[in-house]
Amino acid sequence: MFDYRLERTEGAARAGVFTTPHGDVATPAFMPVGTQGTVKGVAPDELDRMGATMVLSNTYHLYLRPGHELVAELGGLHAFMRWPGPLLTDSGGFQVFSLAASNEVREDGVVFQSHIDGSRHVFTPESVMEIERSLGADVVMAFDQCPSGGCSESEARTATERTLRWLERCRRRFHELADERAVPEQTLFPVLQGNVYDGLRREQARGFADMGEWDGWAIGGLSVGEEKPAMWRTLELLDGEIPKGRPRYLMGVGYPDDLLEAVARGCDLFDCVAPTRNARHGTAWTAAGQVNVKAARFRSDRLPLDPGCDCPACVGYDRAYIRHLFVANEMLGLRLVSLHNLRFLLRLAEQARAHILDGSFRAWSADWLERYRGTRV
Amino acid sequence: MFDYRLERTEGAARAGVFTTPHGDVATPAFMPVGTQGTVKGVAPDELDRMGATMVLSNTYHLYLRPGHELVAELGGLHAFMRWPGPLLTDSGGFQVFSLAASNEVREDGVVFQSHIDGSRHVFTPESVMEIERSLGADVVMAFDQCPSGGCSESEARTATERTLRWLERCRRRFHELADERAVPEQTLFPVLQGNVYDGLRREQARGFADMGEWDGWAIGGLSVGEEKPAMWRTLELLDGEIPKGRPRYLMGVGYPDDLLEAVARGCDLFDCVAPTRNARHGTAWTAAGQVNVKAARFRSDRLPLDPGCDCPACVGYDRAYIRHLFVANEMLGLRLVSLHNLRFLLRLAEQARAHILDGSFRAWSADWLERYRGTRV
Repeated sequence: MFDYRLERTEGAARAGVFTTPHGDVATPAFMPVGTQGTVKGVAPDELDRMGATMVLSNTYHLYLRPGHELVAELGGLHAFMRWPGPLLTDSGGFQVFSLAASNEVREDGVVFQSHIDGSRHVFTPESVMEIERSLGADVVMAFDQCPSGGCSESEARTATERTLRWLERCRRRFHELADERAVPEQTLFPVLQGNVYDGLRREQARGFADMGEWDGWAIGGLSVGEEKPAMWRTLELLDGEIPKGRPRYLMGVGYPDDLLEAVARGCDLFDCVAPTRNARHGTAWTAAGQVNVKAARFRSDRLPLDPGCDCPACVGYDRAYIRHLFVANEMLGLRLVSLHNLRFLLRLAEQARAHILDGSFRAWSADWLERYRGTRV
Repeated sequence: MFDYRLERTEGAARAGVFTTPHGDVATPAFMPVGTQGTVKGVAPDELDRMGATMVLSNTYHLYLRPGHELVAELGGLHAFMRWPGPLLTDSGGFQVFSLAASNEVREDGVVFQSHIDGSRHVFTPESVMEIERSLGADVVMAFDQCPSGGCSESEARTATERTLRWLERCRRRFHELADERAVPEQTLFPVLQGNVYDGLRREQARGFADMGEWDGWAIGGLSVGEEKPAMWRTLELLDGEIPKGRPRYLMGVGYPDDLLEAVARGCDLFDCVAPTRNARHGTAWTAAGQVNVKAARFRSDRLPLDPGCDCPACVGYDRAYIRHLFVANEMLGLRLVSLHNLRFLLRLAEQARAHILDGSFRAWSADWLERYRGTRV
């Protein structure tokens, strides 16, 4: 049921199709994030109309609210969040370290306090597999330990070694559950840690490969505060280590320019809350860079947010009105800029794919980045 | 350009068609409120798909933010808020008394402080006509003085007498502006005051009629805190005073049951923020009364909010998911319940109209109210 067909490459950049039980994902692709079973402010039919193919949701959040058993009782995550297409759940590994009110890492798992009510919980590789099996997304992420950017090599080593041991436990429990219960067709992606330490990254990738075959690989531990050049170097290293015939999902990326840089280095799938989070703060992406929609210069500006954009906000509304909505704290403003930023990233991935397919990715991407960064001479 | 065709009556209830330069409004009709140039959380195409024909917006709010001159510069309110259909602006008369940080009524007008920043402003009948001419809605409300529910007869008399004098000034300035400027085709509705005092109500209606012809009449000074029976009695009295051949707009109503009671007493047009304001607090209207969508009993309830409802929330989502969205403070929850409550009132007015047209309004309405109020035996 899971397959990846590599259609064409240009340098390290790849165009392909990832097949899942709920549909195909043409890659490169950006996955909108539905943290709590909803992409903030956006309805599923709007996502579909904007070209989203695969959506991500968060195990940590759904476990706390409304609870994975309830989601299962209601027919699983696809039915619950009204997303009939491909779905991916992360493992909560990132959230228990970044979001929980407190956390304590032990060999068996992580003890953490809910950021909502301070209640105490434990995630183990086994319990996370049980939760993700209950949720029923197509792609299930392994439970990993993700140290923060700027961690020492020894901290990173501890985390990669534990991530490898946890992956073995995830894999075992994931397969046991398929035998024990009537579960939907799902696949497990391992999450590579190792921060920006080349040796650890290589070791982690080889450790995962030695464990067997995977339908896809995730790259974790990046976009967590490290310097950009270190991120690019790490992706270049991993491009040589991960099997070419599987999709590579770079977690937590990203911003438009980072997405293109990562596509150039062989990544296929991306997720990030940046489109909707930026939108809520009034930041819109345009071909000429980021703009603050509340800026006084937009007061009577009748152009769309990004001239040439095909999103519902740009087709239907102008900057003056969207600025008014933000200044007046009107919900429609958040909705419109969320739609715009999501479509901006979804389209950027579509364009990258089209240019890889016709061999013009490198030139197009360089030009695009120059305009976006305002560095065109 | 403005016309009202009375199609059929059943008792005092009326079915008709109000024609405006931007389209026809089949009455009875509920007008969604776009306070700041947007119906909270709802896009214009969603309103259109749910059957809204006429929308209201607020002079007080648009004057303060973004400013009526800017709205005019941007092509007028229809263009600004992307509502190509009939539009009505209130006069700010209600807001300067109910919302402003302070207000002082003088014979020339009202001095008030903005609820946003405390800045000092003056509304006069003349300045309000200038603002409403700039906004360019089809129907423009006269600037009136609206005392609160429970005011004494002498307070109400002062207000009705001033409202009559202000109406004369509104009318003069409204027509002058048509000569001075290239303004859109608009009409001015007078706003009847008089609280629940029959003598004052009668006197006010006759004073307005003596002033000349109006394309429609508005009933103000109700739904401001008075007892319901007094409101119904006042509507019955006014039904005999207002010309039958013009639409009657009952301002600030309402809740579903109040809307039906007012239709039965000869009212044609309604507006209220209740659908969206209730939605933001998690209150949904159903055929069996109000429900709190956060109620624990909806935790795993897979029925729509109101079984049989044709709104986008009921067609696409269940109570369990909508409850989750509210418990998790997700914006999509507010959107869905706003859509539901708006469609609920829009449909209720459509149903009332259909039943008036076939002579079954009284029986249907009694049955509907029994179910809604839970008083069916």
